[in-house]
Amino acid sequence: MRRETQLDRRRFLKKGVALAGLATGAPVVGASRAEAAAAAVDLNATEQVLYGQRSRFVTTTRVIEGSSHRDIAPPRPNPYRPSARTPLGESVGIITPTSLHFTTQHNYGIPDINPAEHKLMIHGLVDRPLVFTVDELKRFPSVSRIHFLECVGNRPAPGGKTVSDTHGRMACSEWTGVPLSVLLREAGIKNSATWLIAEGSDGGKHEKSVPLAKALDDVLVAYGQNGEPVRPDHGFPLRLIVPGFEGIYNVKWLRRLKLVDQAYVTFQEHSRFIGSNPRTQPDSYAFGPSSVITFPSGSQRLSGRGQHVISGLAWSGGGEVKRVDVSVDGGKTYQEARLTGAVLPKAHTRFELVWRWEGEEAVLQSRCTDVKGQVQPTEAEYAKYWGFARQQLYTTIQSQLGHCNWIMPWKVNRDGSVTNGLPPVGAVVDVHG
Amino acid sequence: MRRETQLDRRRFLKKGVALAGLATGAPVVGASRAEAAAAAVDLNATEQVLYGQRSRFVTTTRVIEGSSHRDIAPPRPNPYRPSARTPLGESVGIITPTSLHFTTQHNYGIPDINPAEHKLMIHGLVDRPLVFTVDELKRFPSVSRIHFLECVGNRPAPGGKTVSDTHGRMACSEWTGVPLSVLLREAGIKNSATWLIAEGSDGGKHEKSVPLAKALDDVLVAYGQNGEPVRPDHGFPLRLIVPGFEGIYNVKWLRRLKLVDQAYVTFQEHSRFIGSNPRTQPDSYAFGPSSVITFPSGSQRLSGRGQHVISGLAWSGGGEVKRVDVSVDGGKTYQEARLTGAVLPKAHTRFELVWRWEGEEAVLQSRCTDVKGQVQPTEAEYAKYWGFARQQLYTTIQSQLGHCNWIMPWKVNRDGSVTNGLPPVGAVVDVHG
Repeated sequence: MRRETQLDRRRFLKKGVALAGLATGAPVVGASRAEAAAAAVDLNATEQVLYGQRSRFVTTTRVIEGSSHRDIAPPRPNPYRPSARTPLGESVGIITPTSLHFTTQHNYGIPDINPAEHKLMIHGLVDRPLVFTVDELKRFPSVSRIHFLECVGNRPAPGGKTVSDTHGRMACSEWTGVPLSVLLREAGIKNSATWLIAEGSDGGKHEKSVPLAKALDDVLVAYGQNGEPVRPDHGFPLRLIVPGFEGIYNVKWLRRLKLVDQAYVTFQEHSRFIGSNPRTQPDSYAFGPSSVITFPSGSQRLSGRGQHVISGLAWSGGGEVKRVDVSVDGGKTYQEARLTGAVLPKAHTRFELVWRWEGEEAVLQSRCTDVKGQVQPTEAEYAKYWGFARQQLYTTIQSQLGHCNWIMPWKVNRDGSVTNGLPPVGAVVDVHG
Repeated sequence: MRRETQLDRRRFLKKGVALAGLATGAPVVGASRAEAAAAAVDLNATEQVLYGQRSRFVTTTRVIEGSSHRDIAPPRPNPYRPSARTPLGESVGIITPTSLHFTTQHNYGIPDINPAEHKLMIHGLVDRPLVFTVDELKRFPSVSRIHFLECVGNRPAPGGKTVSDTHGRMACSEWTGVPLSVLLREAGIKNSATWLIAEGSDGGKHEKSVPLAKALDDVLVAYGQNGEPVRPDHGFPLRLIVPGFEGIYNVKWLRRLKLVDQAYVTFQEHSRFIGSNPRTQPDSYAFGPSSVITFPSGSQRLSGRGQHVISGLAWSGGGEVKRVDVSVDGGKTYQEARLTGAVLPKAHTRFELVWRWEGEEAVLQSRCTDVKGQVQPTEAEYAKYWGFARQQLYTTIQSQLGHCNWIMPWKVNRDGSVTNGLPPVGAVVDVHG
């Protein structure tokens, strides 16, 4: 019934009210902007032929996050730090639509860069400091690789209502760019260089130290994402892609790479990001094996008894996903899931398990094993290994925990509703730094 | 200089004129709609956070085709048959942005389908005729595969000014859906069934006969494309994906699959699509090995002497691309190109060759060899094999030729401009049926 009401409203809007409302800037009473915009799409119009759009029946959006990463803030946008999570609950396959790719940590807003004026400087402990325009970078050999990006702020927490809440600071794209090793060899690497500092063009001048060995391995200076130029909220025109490492290594609006002989504690890292837990910090570069069920997940509802397909994503900073196991009894027993598409290193990997549901309570969870043999831990295993009390997993800032890759259980209730399967805990501190 | 003028105009527009123009519906003098829309994007606005958009400096669009496939028509859109080609000259990687994916052959316009009301029927020579809603289809196991789609109307012709002209009826996406074999087994296939007829929901009721063996091999009933629901111009909510076969097999807005005991000559096929050349028709299901250079290609210009990267796409309906060779001397000699990313069956495969240009004339072309050992022919080899005079390759309707997978040469002139490298021929008949 609710659906019909929405449809009726859209049909009504389509007859001119929405356009009129948008045109004058006046609010359209009772309709969100997204609904009004969707209703205004004429599938056969010239604009749609030039640059296609979604069906008006598809209205999935990113999930806007709070205005400050240090607040447990209400979900309102902030022009100086617009952050939003990927709506993973509606994802299919492994490619994230670029428009729905999570975006976070813009210090002082998303810069509006003219690519014809943008430059990348490579200097420091090199034989020949170099400055490249974007066009010049395109005269070097490129590679295209499908990789996940994940913010270290992702954490399966008991308070998360949806899989976007628990894991939505994550996405996967095809990235195209120049291997950084090619550019560094062009500049000539001095023997004393062991790290590089990557700097963005944002108002906050985000910087991150990257080990030189990683830079020479598989890091890209990317100008392409899913077949088009990297979008502004993902780093247009240049983004450093550091496969398998924490999101903050993947510096947006990249303008400078300085080779140095030690890691720097840069301003943004020092003030926001760096983990202070000496137990986990040495391991905190590459993500371990992880996975999460996206359907059925929190706030979704099974459409009835009978056959369903449990579907989810697995990934690891260690390389390819080797296998995924799924439990429907809260981890007592597991069955091996089927991987449904391409299995690529440091990329999302889609898995499925066919399941018959007869109305019983069930706790669904998945466990990833990567090509290195690393196995995703349970919450209890994670806490025990690192010596945390359970409560500390949720009162400690994420970046001080390490990578929160523990197993996420979803509880299916008798009415088919799905809720967070982690036992409740007190107030959760959420700092996605 | 031209660029600066555009930028200045955009900056001017951003200060309010564009928004005012859009708002009143009044034309914005001197600015295209795309420019005005781009100028209106506020990177930090709520709309952009909810659903991201491109930089205002990125204005690539699809290339609108003529209003009738039987005309050599002027490039104006037609609401009843909106067709547009992929702008391959600006492509990177292998994924085509869905908004730029070619779209063609909509008989009587793109239908505006409510997925909650849409159904797929499977009937004919089956044990149990079945009807599925879209939600019901999602309760079956799925797969996600990256595949190219190509219209049989693609043809490297001497008149083509750009790679979009010669090859733009082609794109590559990650498709997610139910293997058709799963659905057919659910319905029970009678022994007498050898073909199926797939029917769309468009006004023209496009239908296509598909061999049952292919249907049981790797055909999908797809509901996902590049991580989101299939878009309306690509078949929302359901599209048949027939990997490696001609585009017209990939029936959009799929509503019916009838199992039968022979191929049908359906109305749309009979009136528009079917090839009448008995020599090529039996071979006309799966595309042979093909490739094309996308940079540098027609109407582009080398930015100066020195190192450039020749980049292109290769593909084959026969499976994976095994190797690509590139010639810079019009085919006298070839060098093996590097494949720059994932090499997947029946998918675009990106290749590159580093090349130094010192201002000389050069003819660049690529040659694909697929996993079956099939080698892409030259224009002369193609004509000789099928017994055509050269002129016939361009005066015969494409679907009567077979698949026009001959090698495409691009000529680099002394001033760095790039033009079509095929020798001129008389008037070309272009019927992308």
